[in-house]
Amino acid sequence: MLDTAIRNAEIVTAADRYRADIGIRDGRIVSIAEDVGPATEEIDAAGLLVLPGGIDAHVHLEQPQGGDVVMADGFESGTRSAAAGGNTTVLPFALQKKGQSLRDAVQAYHAAAEGKCYTDTSFHIIITDPTPQVLGQELPALVRDGYTSFKVFMTYDDMVLNDAQLIDVFDVARREKAMVMVHAEGYDAIRYMARRLEEAGKTAPYYHAESRPQSVEREATHRAISHAELTDVPICIVHVSGRDPMEQIQWARRRGMNVWAETCPQYIALTADDLKGLNMDFDGAKYVCSPPPRDLDSQAAIWEGLRDGTFDIFSSDHCPFRFEDSHGKDVEGARTSFRWVPNGIPGIEARMPILFSEGVSKGRITLERFVELTATNPAKLFGMYPRKGTIAVGADADLTVWDATREVTMSQELHHHDCDYTPYEGMAITGWPVRTILRGRTIFAEGEITGAPGQGVYLERGTSRAFG
Amino acid sequence: MLDTAIRNAEIVTAADRYRADIGIRDGRIVSIAEDVGPATEEIDAAGLLVLPGGIDAHVHLEQPQGGDVVMADGFESGTRSAAAGGNTTVLPFALQKKGQSLRDAVQAYHAAAEGKCYTDTSFHIIITDPTPQVLGQELPALVRDGYTSFKVFMTYDDMVLNDAQLIDVFDVARREKAMVMVHAEGYDAIRYMARRLEEAGKTAPYYHAESRPQSVEREATHRAISHAELTDVPICIVHVSGRDPMEQIQWARRRGMNVWAETCPQYIALTADDLKGLNMDFDGAKYVCSPPPRDLDSQAAIWEGLRDGTFDIFSSDHCPFRFEDSHGKDVEGARTSFRWVPNGIPGIEARMPILFSEGVSKGRITLERFVELTATNPAKLFGMYPRKGTIAVGADADLTVWDATREVTMSQELHHHDCDYTPYEGMAITGWPVRTILRGRTIFAEGEITGAPGQGVYLERGTSRAFG
Amino acid sequence: MLDTAIRNAEIVTAADRYRADIGIRDGRIVSIAEDVGPATEEIDAAGLLVLPGGIDAHVHLEQPQGGDVVMADGFESGTRSAAAGGNTTVLPFALQKKGQSLRDAVQAYHAAAEGKCYTDTSFHIIITDPTPQVLGQELPALVRDGYTSFKVFMTYDDMVLNDAQLIDVFDVARREKAMVMVHAEGYDAIRYMARRLEEAGKTAPYYHAESRPQSVEREATHRAISHAELTDVPICIVHVSGRDPMEQIQWARRRGMNVWAETCPQYIALTADDLKGLNMDFDGAKYVCSPPPRDLDSQAAIWEGLRDGTFDIFSSDHCPFRFEDSHGKDVEGARTSFRWVPNGIPGIEARMPILFSEGVSKGRITLERFVELTATNPAKLFGMYPRKGTIAVGADADLTVWDATREVTMSQELHHHDCDYTPYEGMAITGWPVRTILRGRTIFAEGEITGAPGQGVYLERGTSRAFG
Amino acid sequence: MLDTAIRNAEIVTAADRYRADIGIRDGRIVSIAEDVGPATEEIDAAGLLVLPGGIDAHVHLEQPQGGDVVMADGFESGTRSAAAGGNTTVLPFALQKKGQSLRDAVQAYHAAAEGKCYTDTSFHIIITDPTPQVLGQELPALVRDGYTSFKVFMTYDDMVLNDAQLIDVFDVARREKAMVMVHAEGYDAIRYMARRLEEAGKTAPYYHAESRPQSVEREATHRAISHAELTDVPICIVHVSGRDPMEQIQWARRRGMNVWAETCPQYIALTADDLKGLNMDFDGAKYVCSPPPRDLDSQAAIWEGLRDGTFDIFSSDHCPFRFEDSHGKDVEGARTSFRWVPNGIPGIEARMPILFSEGVSKGRITLERFVELTATNPAKLFGMYPRKGTIAVGADADLTVWDATREVTMSQELHHHDCDYTPYEGMAITGWPVRTILRGRTIFAEGEITGAPGQGVYLERGTSRAFG
Repeated sequence: MLDTAIRNAEIVTAADRYRADIGIRDGRIVSIAEDVGPATEEIDAAGLLVLPGGIDAHVHLEQPQGGDVVMADGFESGTRSAAAGGNTTVLPFALQKKGQSLRDAVQAYHAAAEGKCYTDTSFHIIITDPTPQVLGQELPALVRDGYTSFKVFMTYDDMVLNDAQLIDVFDVARREKAMVMVHAEGYDAIRYMARRLEEAGKTAPYYHAESRPQSVEREATHRAISHAELTDVPICIVHVSGRDPMEQIQWARRRGMNVWAETCPQYIALTADDLKGLNMDFDGAKYVCSPPPRDLDSQAAIWEGLRDGTFDIFSSDHCPFRFEDSHGKDVEGARTSFRWVPNGIPGIEARMPILFSEGVSKGRITLERFVELTATNPAKLFGMYPRKGTIAVGADADLTVWDATREVTMSQELHHHDCDYTPYEGMAITGWPVRTILRGRTIFAEGEITGAPGQGVYLERGTSRAFG
Repeated sequence: MLDTAIRNAEIVTAADRYRADIGIRDGRIVSIAEDVGPATEEIDAAGLLVLPGGIDAHVHLEQPQGGDVVMADGFESGTRSAAAGGNTTVLPFALQKKGQSLRDAVQAYHAAAEGKCYTDTSFHIIITDPTPQVLGQELPALVRDGYTSFKVFMTYDDMVLNDAQLIDVFDVARREKAMVMVHAEGYDAIRYMARRLEEAGKTAPYYHAESRPQSVEREATHRAISHAELTDVPICIVHVSGRDPMEQIQWARRRGMNVWAETCPQYIALTADDLKGLNMDFDGAKYVCSPPPRDLDSQAAIWEGLRDGTFDIFSSDHCPFRFEDSHGKDVEGARTSFRWVPNGIPGIEARMPILFSEGVSKGRITLERFVELTATNPAKLFGMYPRKGTIAVGADADLTVWDATREVTMSQELHHHDCDYTPYEGMAITGWPVRTILRGRTIFAEGEITGAPGQGVYLERGTSRAFG
Repeated sequence: MLDTAIRNAEIVTAADRYRADIGIRDGRIVSIAEDVGPATEEIDAAGLLVLPGGIDAHVHLEQPQGGDVVMADGFESGTRSAAAGGNTTVLPFALQKKGQSLRDAVQAYHAAAEGKCYTDTSFHIIITDPTPQVLGQELPALVRDGYTSFKVFMTYDDMVLNDAQLIDVFDVARREKAMVMVHAEGYDAIRYMARRLEEAGKTAPYYHAESRPQSVEREATHRAISHAELTDVPICIVHVSGRDPMEQIQWARRRGMNVWAETCPQYIALTADDLKGLNMDFDGAKYVCSPPPRDLDSQAAIWEGLRDGTFDIFSSDHCPFRFEDSHGKDVEGARTSFRWVPNGIPGIEARMPILFSEGVSKGRITLERFVELTATNPAKLFGMYPRKGTIAVGADADLTVWDATREVTMSQELHHHDCDYTPYEGMAITGWPVRTILRGRTIFAEGEITGAPGQGVYLERGTSRAFG
Repeated sequence: MLDTAIRNAEIVTAADRYRADIGIRDGRIVSIAEDVGPATEEIDAAGLLVLPGGIDAHVHLEQPQGGDVVMADGFESGTRSAAAGGNTTVLPFALQKKGQSLRDAVQAYHAAAEGKCYTDTSFHIIITDPTPQVLGQELPALVRDGYTSFKVFMTYDDMVLNDAQLIDVFDVARREKAMVMVHAEGYDAIRYMARRLEEAGKTAPYYHAESRPQSVEREATHRAISHAELTDVPICIVHVSGRDPMEQIQWARRRGMNVWAETCPQYIALTADDLKGLNMDFDGAKYVCSPPPRDLDSQAAIWEGLRDGTFDIFSSDHCPFRFEDSHGKDVEGARTSFRWVPNGIPGIEARMPILFSEGVSKGRITLERFVELTATNPAKLFGMYPRKGTIAVGADADLTVWDATREVTMSQELHHHDCDYTPYEGMAITGWPVRTILRGRTIFAEGEITGAPGQGVYLERGTSRAFG
């Protein structure tokens, strides 16, 4: 006897689309069949798609930002919002503070997450202080413990690694078979541009975008790729924003380099003009993220890349700040210069609806590609496959039931995060998640959270598929 | 009660790999589960892979070649050899003779195939005489009848279409949503080179390769792509041999053009040097095909393309001639010049083992990619999906049971074709098909044909996925 | 004692710019010095530039167009207009009619030109009928007689060569070291587009531009380059109109191919929108030429190419038809479809002022590059150097005295051709030729023709520099 | 009455080649004519080429290297060697020591050069310590004084600038219109590679080449170009060694960036294999320079670039160390690791013969291009034109009389430097300088130095042509 049967499902995987029932027992898929037989719980999916639960592989939760700035979402609200957006797994970051041991950093995030998560989670480690101890002992040990991915920053005062440090981290990653995510923007170039803009009195949030043009992202992308070539390690360039860095990635692959790439909703749904707010006012701060959204030509390029395989994964880079207190009015200095506006916007709940609506519903990408970008590839890239990321016998019963025809107007009211706005307010969406199932249990249905904090488990992960 | 249960299978699709049983009833897959329950026939696949049955989308059978030359394989031996090579579906050509109506051509091939086929089959139509009648009436009607793909040639005396004709065919294909396969080599350029070589006394089979350098294939590829751009129709460039034409395809895609591409075993397993035979003798005729195999750099390029998605499908271009009577000694003129050596080599049985061994076993491509190239994409590109090309509930139970570890030396003795040689004689292979299942029935097992002629059915096909 | 001394000249060559006097005797430059000593004739060039006389290497004069259409300029008015535009050498075409011997064709043009020319001239031979006699005997003999350049067309009903013919001509050109100019547009593609447009009732002159998009020019460019690669011969792609064909030329050169390129005023000063005339009326016929002008992005690309060396020469492609009788109203059919509007516009007199004004005066190219494009490279490419194309001791005293600061509004009134309009009417020009000196004799000064028909001589030319 | 007449010269400029006499008075060319009239000194150049005197724009003389290492050539022997190699102008560096004011640095080099130079000279300033004082006050003042070019290093312990410093220098260069030369190799990447090689016991001179692969040069080239794009300033990438960095330069130009490029003899005449010495011994130290010579494919790429305009100038990067005492045996640590071998090889005397012999004599580049690369473009790029760099009335009479047919075997015995070896020992050369004339005075003739130290003057330079 099954625990749950999903009937009449239109199942979609990264390769296939077909109609069948799904049988679930003990949180796993045990059968897919024309008829799976009797079950305790029946779910009728007639007329709906059943997709692998979304995996958001790039999420910032409860990270300290310095000073009084507080991230809007912690593990509870962040994973709650994720579940409402069709996700069953979330990969937030464990950020090393300068001077801190990685093990301590990881423990601190475990402590913060403990008992809070609606979805399954696993941490990428942000390395900000690659001491010999960190490189030689902590990282190898942590990889063996299932922390198989790192993130490094090429910008930000408190996180930037210089080239020697980047190369050292890449070198460890090769030896330990860890996947390195790279935030590729050039620190010194941004500082130069910011100084020039400020000197010219250009301080509104919009100038955040002008302070970090595509050439800055392109240069850092080329640099990271070159370091990866030197150290012979796969890397993933995250939140690629436009044509220039994309061309570097494509060029590297044509040369046989093992480079992976991610993009995010803001690069297909926003442009730098959004940062102008209403007549260059402070409302533009709601759209400040890095890299910044670009222009329509870059959006077109990103779509090409989503279609042609340039991008492997599509994540939210959810990094939420409350506009009313943290992301603007109350941040010291934020109104004096774009430089002090916290970088980041919410997106964990909007990610899948936006890609579905703009991509699948508008005919730009196939359903299979949608699944690949939002679930299968993230699972493969970050060592969770085949337990996560697909609909197959033996996998966790992580599923999203999707109504491809439902029309919704995106709004803050619909959101389940603790942020006080969405940058996608008013966007017309076709296609919406109507149920999220985590290991067989429905944690979200028809707009209501039905799960509970603590139902999500922490995932120890294996080696990335990028290592072959 | 199932007809057949395949137990302990390591199932591979274009996206996934997992362990489960497969339940078959009435020729279709009705369940995939940890336990599919009882069945009349039990197949134990423990330790083996179960893949979608191979689809060879580029096969020449029983085509007339002019004069006394006879193709080595007809529908019976051709599909028998296909079954032994792990294939369940074969797409041969129905060739229009000049002056012939397409309907007559198609009927002639149906007559030849009737009752002969071990595998399922469906015909692409080769258009050699695109009269207004053919373009305006026959093609639209045939597409509606399920003949949803054409092939055109840009070379060969008896088949070449000029640019006006190519454009006209493309124009019809756009209107009718038919997929056009293009043999892209420039006719006049080849004639010029052949004449120059003959004038220089260079007539051995090897000079076949020199008479059609990559620039000739590249030019025709660019030309075909440009015509497709003008008429706004997807096309498939078949049997791409090397870096030069590949770059054209990649360039076209970066510009957003809808171009598909195929390559074949000869471009990863042979080089032009093979045409030298033993000291430039006539043995080289065994490797004469068009485009000719290139060099090691081109092989490397082809592998890149197989890995990075440049190639969508991997076919055999099986076009067999007996060396002892048809492909050499007895062909009038063949010994006087490479120009009279029949163009084509066998490969229907070797296709999957070669790609598996050189690709999967040597770590160049993933198992999933192997499935995508040999089955899933051919099915999608040629309108047979989801009935064919994957392992999913509801699909035909077309399966290949594969032993990934078996080591075999390729040899003519192992082959089931009627050709008298294989160009891959002596090649060391790791990974081999041990059972082929067509709609639930085992038609080949452990080296023995267990099916019978006529068990294969003819497939009316739908619209190619290339049309969205 | 010198015949003529030009004092205080600001001399410009393709590499240098310096102030000196020029001494002329017997039509040649015999000294360049701080003081050249006494002379019979004194010309004061203070405040003016002295440039090598312009060489317009692409000019159609007195060619038959079929039916009643008469080219507006013969050798007399054409070279008169050339002289007024700062040119001292003009290279018109000698067009072979189908069935005609090349020798007869050349003789016919000599007869037409005899005693008429204000400037020096030499003929390129247009090959429309490459019979074995033409290829095997006439061309080699004519090259030896100094007819060292051919032109071939890839379009136009009465001139198009097919690929076999193109290759044959290229093959002869390699053997005889002749430079082949290629009109690269694909014939069949244009016919297809024209038919589609006509079927849609789109017959205004503007649709001439839509009937031959850049992809058509790009394809033919790639094809011509590929044939040149095969036959190992340098070629010159003429009247390149935009980014697409340019990229083919750049790509070919990066691969080491010996490809030369020309562009023309219409591709920097007009766009397809000009063909719309006034509200899509027949006035657009004044701008009908092939390839058609493109758009602003293409203009930008052409400027890049003029600056970066993609283009070697800048010619007019002067091909004038009277709007009032030949180019529109009186041409049978012209008003029924763009297809019957004669292709070509005047430009021999406007060429240098437009490039100077838009290029040099606006800072897009250097003065030296202007000289290289308009005189030095044409002389080198077509076997007239060092007699023509530069200012150096020993060279013909062919000079243009240029006022870099003079502001002129381009108008038909200023022109000396027999055409009844200029497509550049109203264009603001900075920089103007104030004197043209042919072998020491002033043939044009301050708007007035001072030379006489017959003063120009015919030039037998040597081998192109393209052959090294 | 002229001071000097050069009779029967075959004059070559960057654009032209013609036969004429040259008249010289007061060190300048005052006439070029069929007959320049009487002169005090007669030079017969019959059968010889007369070229603009070579300008070697990249020369290290008398620079401190740290420790006991002494550069083999000071201003006297360096310019003597230059004169013997056909050069009339040399641009050495004035190196700022950390903490030193630029003005002091410049004065120190003036003091060292005073009264020593056989050729004219002018200094580029190497900036190693871009303090606010240096950036804000010293550089602007020095540019106004004619020090219109800087050099920056992206590697070397004692000279490397970080990205912020590079950007600051570029920013000043834009404002002051100074040309920045960039040594583009990535510091941290090299340190990583060196460490890995040393850890593997790979310490022979050859591993110098492995420690700085092309990817390291390519990355730094891309980075420098990106910083130049950001600051909107032209830069010159110096000593480009192979295909990878070349592609970055070509890519940048296609995007409209104002990037100039230099290459050197070692990249066409040496390969990394030369560093192997005899069986990986210390003799390889004679070929240690940075970037290191690459391979034959890179040599082919460099030739392409010399032909197609990718390279603007061809310099020696003369940086000589005595093998017997400074460049090996006596350098502390040099035998323990390639890391301690001084970087640099001599080439000031060999530069022009090597490029002439391998380029002009072997038909790879034209004579005009040779002149452009070795004299005209260096003069234009570094603000010395038209006084230097060409043969024209008004210019300094800096001339090299060249015997294009003389065959010489390159050897240390022929050299006039103070280095104790040449890396080109034994190279067969066709084409050799037989006389060097500096401002009308013969300073070298037929192997003998005829000038004297102190005859060379220091040149204050104007703005680079790169600024338009």
